[in-house]
Amino acid sequence: MSLNEVLDRIDADVNAATDRLLDLLRIQSVSTDPAYKAECEKAADWLVADLKSIGIDAEKRVTPGHPMVVGHVGQENKDAPHVLFYGHYDVQPVDPLNLWKTPPFEPQLEETENGTVIRGRGASDDKGQLMTFVEACRAWQAIHGSLPCRITFFFEGEEESGSPSLVPFMKEHAEELKADIALICDTSMVSRGVPSIASQLRGMLKDEFTLVGPRIDLHSGHYGGPGLNPLREISRIVASFYDEETGKIAVEGFYEGVKEVPEDQMRQWEGCGFDADDYLGNAGYTQAHGEKDRSILEQQWARPTLEVNGLWGGYNGAGSKTVIPSEAHCKITCRLVGDMDPDALRLKIRKHIEDRLKPDCKVVWDNDLEGSRASVMDITRPEFTAARGALSDEWEREAVFCGMGGSIPIAGFFKSILGMESMLIGFANEDDAIHSPNEKYDLKSFHKGIRSWARVLEALTQS
Amino acid sequence: MSLNEVLDRIDADVNAATDRLLDLLRIQSVSTDPAYKAECEKAADWLVADLKSIGIDAEKRVTPGHPMVVGHVGQENKDAPHVLFYGHYDVQPVDPLNLWKTPPFEPQLEETENGTVIRGRGASDDKGQLMTFVEACRAWQAIHGSLPCRITFFFEGEEESGSPSLVPFMKEHAEELKADIALICDTSMVSRGVPSIASQLRGMLKDEFTLVGPRIDLHSGHYGGPGLNPLREISRIVASFYDEETGKIAVEGFYEGVKEVPEDQMRQWEGCGFDADDYLGNAGYTQAHGEKDRSILEQQWARPTLEVNGLWGGYNGAGSKTVIPSEAHCKITCRLVGDMDPDALRLKIRKHIEDRLKPDCKVVWDNDLEGSRASVMDITRPEFTAARGALSDEWEREAVFCGMGGSIPIAGFFKSILGMESMLIGFANEDDAIHSPNEKYDLKSFHKGIRSWARVLEALTQS
Repeated sequence: MSLNEVLDRIDADVNAATDRLLDLLRIQSVSTDPAYKAECEKAADWLVADLKSIGIDAEKRVTPGHPMVVGHVGQENKDAPHVLFYGHYDVQPVDPLNLWKTPPFEPQLEETENGTVIRGRGASDDKGQLMTFVEACRAWQAIHGSLPCRITFFFEGEEESGSPSLVPFMKEHAEELKADIALICDTSMVSRGVPSIASQLRGMLKDEFTLVGPRIDLHSGHYGGPGLNPLREISRIVASFYDEETGKIAVEGFYEGVKEVPEDQMRQWEGCGFDADDYLGNAGYTQAHGEKDRSILEQQWARPTLEVNGLWGGYNGAGSKTVIPSEAHCKITCRLVGDMDPDALRLKIRKHIEDRLKPDCKVVWDNDLEGSRASVMDITRPEFTAARGALSDEWEREAVFCGMGGSIPIAGFFKSILGMESMLIGFANEDDAIHSPNEKYDLKSFHKGIRSWARVLEALTQS
Repeated sequence: MSLNEVLDRIDADVNAATDRLLDLLRIQSVSTDPAYKAECEKAADWLVADLKSIGIDAEKRVTPGHPMVVGHVGQENKDAPHVLFYGHYDVQPVDPLNLWKTPPFEPQLEETENGTVIRGRGASDDKGQLMTFVEACRAWQAIHGSLPCRITFFFEGEEESGSPSLVPFMKEHAEELKADIALICDTSMVSRGVPSIASQLRGMLKDEFTLVGPRIDLHSGHYGGPGLNPLREISRIVASFYDEETGKIAVEGFYEGVKEVPEDQMRQWEGCGFDADDYLGNAGYTQAHGEKDRSILEQQWARPTLEVNGLWGGYNGAGSKTVIPSEAHCKITCRLVGDMDPDALRLKIRKHIEDRLKPDCKVVWDNDLEGSRASVMDITRPEFTAARGALSDEWEREAVFCGMGGSIPIAGFFKSILGMESMLIGFANEDDAIHSPNEKYDLKSFHKGIRSWARVLEALTQS
């Protein structure tokens, strides 16, 4: 088989590939908000049709939530390696909408100092990355009429809303989904132009609580003074999560299960081309603000967090309102590392809060919860060596094994439910503003991402 | 003149008077939200028409904000005392709407264990109270074809949104508005059935600030750890306002200008029929939560506060969003006592916040601010003695001079701009839920309130 013909085909087809991605980006598949359910269906239908157009036996599969897309190709070719490719077609909410320079669901190409970018919600997370693999397969099919591996495609539409349907679906269809290894394209490169393979991912714990004080909103003239104010209480409790001296989380037992990074690994990380000034600068920071005795890379990849993602209560409209509100609300997420157990941690955090409640103030827990443990990959497997070589060839610099600060629970589920290792290769950049206004994906990431997958598929057949 | 005929007329007319109030309550005159501007105009027009219908020379007066209503009657009667009656026709916002058992602007009569109540936004604050005086005048006119005093009516539509147009208007029309004394009906009775005259009011300071951290919303997987989170920062800063040991405000110099209550005054207060269990129970509290070394009455009437009325930032929609938001917002109000200077206090609070900002976190101040000092009335004036007697007759128990926790800046403006003392007499009850969902006004307060003003008007002519 000639890889070069495939790569040439990819180069010749890149504009058409970009147009296909723009079509997918126009679909408003926000999974966390029920108002967009029909759009999620539409995105799934779009993917089924696109996979079928390149000869893949694909179907939309119903779940209690948003549908899955499952496709198979080359299953008859028993000697070829069998890979499962995972991606997600759902996207984050777009608020605050007023901060978008262009409408989030009217994607467009834009020239920037770093070259052409594809601007729009989901451009990077994860529609653009998902399509790098699909386009690589399209080129293989076009040149060879077949693919070099047996491939199972598995796309979900609930990744941005906690994947409630994922585990039941995987358990029910375990036999169908099993492969030698899972390929996941939902991560970023450790630094611009440095091809990266994830060797570990942080886990995730979500929780939400409401503090209830007075039985109704009160007038701050009548009750200001003697009255308990839930906004004051929630501030005190959130502040108590943190030790301002050390920058550590002050919840008792929070760091149980955290593992220290081996020195050689840390040395490799520090040498992997991560640009701390870029990283801070992209966010508008002049310095790091976390644990004072840990490096930025270590904090981002190998240390746990407790972040407040939403806090609200009382009056937030125009003008002012002299109210002592009845309720205050807080959404939090934790990133987990090592052997941290999400269920045990949830109890510790809830106890921390309950231990700090005053009389006449009660806490109500949100029950729609989930947690996922951190993942550490077995990078000694031959597929990792093969992929590393293929990526190094495409990007003309040594690919690195790096940690990832994000959480991709599915990697853990592939291992625990299907006994399958995951290899995470992504082409996003730190400045892609995923989950933020003005999300983008570099055209270079998209184009070289497609070429990278073509090379990886070939390399896997030789590993 | 026969007072009894007037009182009989009031009793005979109470149902019609209630219907008139229900009409006024249907007007959605929320002043703080520009969306309701037309409704505020409508309320002013309704009042002008109603005053004219009882022979008062009334007009709507344009301001840069919502209009004033000014009316005069009996000016030819130079020997009669001259009083100004003040009330406001604007109301608080109705959110959270979902907590209302009946639509806030579809007022209705409702039977409760404490008798019949008038349910709806503004029933108590201040439309119902304002109409007690108007209805008393209507009855006087009906019986005698005239009123016992010279009366100037002065209604504003911005009381719930900081009265931005009030001071300029009073200065411009000082001559027209001057009277011997101002009567204000916007306060509550110290306890159910205990007629009360305010001897002091707390002042008010409002401020609003935004903490700005990262330049955009960030992904908590990429930046969780090293990133500064404005929600964490605002929680830490709000918590720092309070000394949890003593229950006092921890802002340096906060208590400057606070006066201790004289012992005899305190004894009178403690004996004035205030029911602490009722007060706490109405809010769903089992105990007081403020300064540990002060009584509830003292905290409510004679101690300053710093309350958070609104706190928000990040994601508060359905599901969750793993975001580190760029901004966090906070609205606060302070209640002032004694000689506390709102402008000086604002600087102290802002310094407290600025002193606690971390690098990469800046504060942005809301510029639409106002402040008002506390007021202390001269209760030795004959009008206070006369009114106290009239109220005691109507309610068949000794009327009391009490403090008030609320802020009615106009009392201070009447003194500073017009050199006019204010007498605050109100018939609201603690459980009226003003500023809250399900606001109500007892029909008894409305009926006996009208009778009370008829008696006060007559008593003033004899003082």
